[in-house]
Amino acid sequence: MKASQFFVSTFKEAPSDAEVVSHRLMMRAGMIKKLGAGIYTYMPMGLRVIRKVEQIVREEMNRAGAVELTMPVVQPAELWQETGRFDKMGPELLRIKDRHERDFVVQPTSEEVVTDIARQELRSYKQLPKNFYQIQTKFRDERRPRFGLMRGREFIMKDAYSFDRDRDSAQASYQVMAAAYRRIFDRFGLTYRAVAADSGAIGGDLSEEFQVIAATGEDAIVYCPNSDYAANMEKAEALAPAGPRPAAVSPLSKTPTPGKATCADVAELLGVPLSTTVKSLVLATDEINERDEIVNSTVWLLLLRGDHDMNEVKVGKLPGLDMGFRFATLAEIEDHFGCKPGYLGPLNLKKPVQVVADREVAVMADWICGANEADFHMTGVNWGRDLPEPDLVADIRNVVAGDASPDGKGVLAIERGIEVGHVFYLGTKYSQAMNATFLDTDGKPKPFEMGCYGIGVTRLPAAAIEQNHDERGIIWPDAIAPFSVVICPIGMDRSDAVKQAAEQLHDELVAAGVDVLLDDRGERPGAMFADWELIGVPHRVTIGDKGLKDGVVEYQHRRDTEATKVALAEIAALIQGRLKA
Amino acid sequence: MKASQFFVSTFKEAPSDAEVVSHRLMMRAGMIKKLGAGIYTYMPMGLRVIRKVEQIVREEMNRAGAVELTMPVVQPAELWQETGRFDKMGPELLRIKDRHERDFVVQPTSEEVVTDIARQELRSYKQLPKNFYQIQTKFRDERRPRFGLMRGREFIMKDAYSFDRDRDSAQASYQVMAAAYRRIFDRFGLTYRAVAADSGAIGGDLSEEFQVIAATGEDAIVYCPNSDYAANMEKAEALAPAGPRPAAVSPLSKTPTPGKATCADVAELLGVPLSTTVKSLVLATDEINERDEIVNSTVWLLLLRGDHDMNEVKVGKLPGLDMGFRFATLAEIEDHFGCKPGYLGPLNLKKPVQVVADREVAVMADWICGANEADFHMTGVNWGRDLPEPDLVADIRNVVAGDASPDGKGVLAIERGIEVGHVFYLGTKYSQAMNATFLDTDGKPKPFEMGCYGIGVTRLPAAAIEQNHDERGIIWPDAIAPFSVVICPIGMDRSDAVKQAAEQLHDELVAAGVDVLLDDRGERPGAMFADWELIGVPHRVTIGDKGLKDGVVEYQHRRDTEATKVALAEIAALIQGRLKA
Repeated sequence: MKASQFFVSTFKEAPSDAEVVSHRLMMRAGMIKKLGAGIYTYMPMGLRVIRKVEQIVREEMNRAGAVELTMPVVQPAELWQETGRFDKMGPELLRIKDRHERDFVVQPTSEEVVTDIARQELRSYKQLPKNFYQIQTKFRDERRPRFGLMRGREFIMKDAYSFDRDRDSAQASYQVMAAAYRRIFDRFGLTYRAVAADSGAIGGDLSEEFQVIAATGEDAIVYCPNSDYAANMEKAEALAPAGPRPAAVSPLSKTPTPGKATCADVAELLGVPLSTTVKSLVLATDEINERDEIVNSTVWLLLLRGDHDMNEVKVGKLPGLDMGFRFATLAEIEDHFGCKPGYLGPLNLKKPVQVVADREVAVMADWICGANEADFHMTGVNWGRDLPEPDLVADIRNVVAGDASPDGKGVLAIERGIEVGHVFYLGTKYSQAMNATFLDTDGKPKPFEMGCYGIGVTRLPAAAIEQNHDERGIIWPDAIAPFSVVICPIGMDRSDAVKQAAEQLHDELVAAGVDVLLDDRGERPGAMFADWELIGVPHRVTIGDKGLKDGVVEYQHRRDTEATKVALAEIAALIQGRLKA
Repeated sequence: MKASQFFVSTFKEAPSDAEVVSHRLMMRAGMIKKLGAGIYTYMPMGLRVIRKVEQIVREEMNRAGAVELTMPVVQPAELWQETGRFDKMGPELLRIKDRHERDFVVQPTSEEVVTDIARQELRSYKQLPKNFYQIQTKFRDERRPRFGLMRGREFIMKDAYSFDRDRDSAQASYQVMAAAYRRIFDRFGLTYRAVAADSGAIGGDLSEEFQVIAATGEDAIVYCPNSDYAANMEKAEALAPAGPRPAAVSPLSKTPTPGKATCADVAELLGVPLSTTVKSLVLATDEINERDEIVNSTVWLLLLRGDHDMNEVKVGKLPGLDMGFRFATLAEIEDHFGCKPGYLGPLNLKKPVQVVADREVAVMADWICGANEADFHMTGVNWGRDLPEPDLVADIRNVVAGDASPDGKGVLAIERGIEVGHVFYLGTKYSQAMNATFLDTDGKPKPFEMGCYGIGVTRLPAAAIEQNHDERGIIWPDAIAPFSVVICPIGMDRSDAVKQAAEQLHDELVAAGVDVLLDDRGERPGAMFADWELIGVPHRVTIGDKGLKDGVVEYQHRRDTEATKVALAEIAALIQGRLKA
């Protein structure tokens, strides 16, 4: 293609609301154009990237036996009422009314519609397994859309849904998808990790996120450099410490800590490591009657090492806390502890509370905690001697770098990632709610075992940029670059030789199936190079009169610091070789 | 592809709300699935057709120099308020509010958004001409959605918008698009006509509809079999009759016509041709002051031959009627004619009215019209002798078959069509409303000259079926068939020879780039043939043990009445030859 027949539009500056590098670079490179908050036009340059992402996804989904269809963007509310999501979902579900005042939603996903299709179409076990997917516009009315395509309101997602006759078959379908996702992300040419994710109420380990590694990522990814263990922070288990609890050495003592209401302040005041302190978090659970009235509340004290953070997902799975919990009110805290937050602890309680100790805290000796008296902490605290053993010992914290890997193969490391894909075993959650059944071998109706599988098609280019850029602009992997190759002729309007060589190379590459752009805009070399470095085309060939006299052109990969002279006769083969590699 | 890895779902019956053949066949062939009124899932079989339509459109749009982008489905109301369409458009524009109660629309087209892009991006005449297009989901909240994809609410449209610096250039851009449309519709393999259409207030002839010819089409298409004249009914001109008005022969006479309130009844009663009668249509126009109050109304009497119909578009262009008109009220009619409708005419008026005679009526002699007295008509009416010449003579009727062609090359014929494309010169309507300007050669800002160009991507398959079907099902043209070829093996599960031959042919055709499906579902031959005849795959190869013994298979085109024996060794070449033809 020639630039004059395309649309190249670059900007020196990004708008002030572009906070992250991918948003800034996509705006500057003319890939997207803002229409409203979280709503973007995919400009010609950006659309080419999106189409390449779509095509790779489509090829691998088809190869994995999934079948493409397209479900409507605007969906009647009835189906969403069958699963309860029409009422349960928050305002991020865009609800609309048509001219007849009937309720509709603009789809954020399509579980309801695809389950409705399945219950009509898949009537026998003979038709299973089946996997339907679509690559379709979605809408999610984010409270605070930002970061360009990273957290937009309108976006394109590939969503697939598998239907199986039993759990074993569903797990096999899940594994087929997980393998397809690996092929897809391999083809994108990005550094990524498939990490175990929490599968919520369904349980089991059948939930993985595909995270593109980037320092700017929103998510913390936990992995073991010595093994293939990887999980997101919600999921990664902190093992119980290996050794037994040390013997108590120090005496219990009430120590003045005036104005030191955090573990860090106390540790500094006392000149001890933060890891010898224990922090107290007070939660509450409510017992509700049929009329939705609170009939009884229980207060929980969670004890974590001063240098550790609570993991809400893990806490939410503990017996007694798994039906929902909240932070305790100030009144509840004063009622049970006789003290304001900052100096709380498990000793000298006014009223009994449920004490949950993190696995790490449970094996500590001679630790420090609040005295339940303002401006005082207890030091030399020991389980058994100074207070009863905790009611429950559990993993309730986020792992930290250096923790033992759950697979026993070394210690954990942490890096940042951007979630661009998710494979998830759904079980019968939707099929039961919608009475979606098939006739099994025994002739009896049975609900489908389902899985769902998403890829953020428009988010992926943003993640790719977060991972691959420098101070000059984007650096696309070959597979999803808007153009694989750009030919930059110097003085094409003045030199027939340059024009002829440029057009000949262009035609030769096109004939070889290479996605090449000839920049015939007539820009000065500096401006031309700056544009293509900003846009991030991976391979560049510069053709000038001077080189042509010696029969050479200049080749430069976007990551190269300088250009290499290559014989004009060899450049096409060189590029094709590089693209295949 | 193998059927077992795809999704084939056919139905014996169509739902009762499927009124037209394309709707019935698309439902029965499992191409679409209804989700709500006018909202359909494109099922795997139907999506393949849609994707082929999209691909042909995309290739030809790119070839014509248009550049693809994708504008949002959900668009902020602000831009729609700039052109006034947010308020002016009826309830077919789906208006929605986001979580912050801000107004949005679900796009039915994108003139506003693309004009907004142009005014930001196209700053100089050097960047013109430019044509942006998208293939994108649209929504139009039809009052009465019906006919499946023919008149749905959610649909896919290709919409293109050209931007030019002056009218000449805009006309050239228009012609480029009109030529691209001809290539596109040629490639679809459908019988179609490009017909001149009315271009509304903008004037000129720069509006053409692309109509797929089908007996069931909603639109009447006027054409001259001896020339390339073609227009839609709104646009087609009825020429003034060639000869002069004949001399008056009959005397004026008031004739009793009790209970005969229509021209047809009167002609029958009197035993004269319908074409000797004249019908009276009474319209009114209002003069409005600045406070939107009616300060004066004018009553118009339109006279048409009894066998002709009024053309509202033509009437709406007459001087005095071109700012909007309405049918007169009963009170206005009685006030001016002293009579109820059914016996109205231009003689014996109580108050003066503006008389507009159709060109045909203006040259009639000895005609018949209402007497402005219930149960009486006037016969032997003659212009000049019995009443003054009309205030205005104009073309205000629909043409009929046999009328002279406006190009003087014969007589007109009329057939039915389905509009699937439209090219339209917009002028500066949107650019002026939105102050979308570029800097012209003289350095001064100037509004863009625009054109818009649509193709109904999801409507096209329905139109193709209306044109190409028989009692057994759909007959797809090769270019947009879901599969070009289906291989039907007989007893594949019992015969290794059949299985091997079928798979080998499948693989050979796939390698040659042929879109082939191998039906490995194990259905009985009758059911298998019925499915593929319903679905409408154009080329079918049947492979059975009996034929294989003689080294032959059976080939049958969907339009053939019976199969032809072809040597197994030659079938692949035969199919490739047919597909190229």
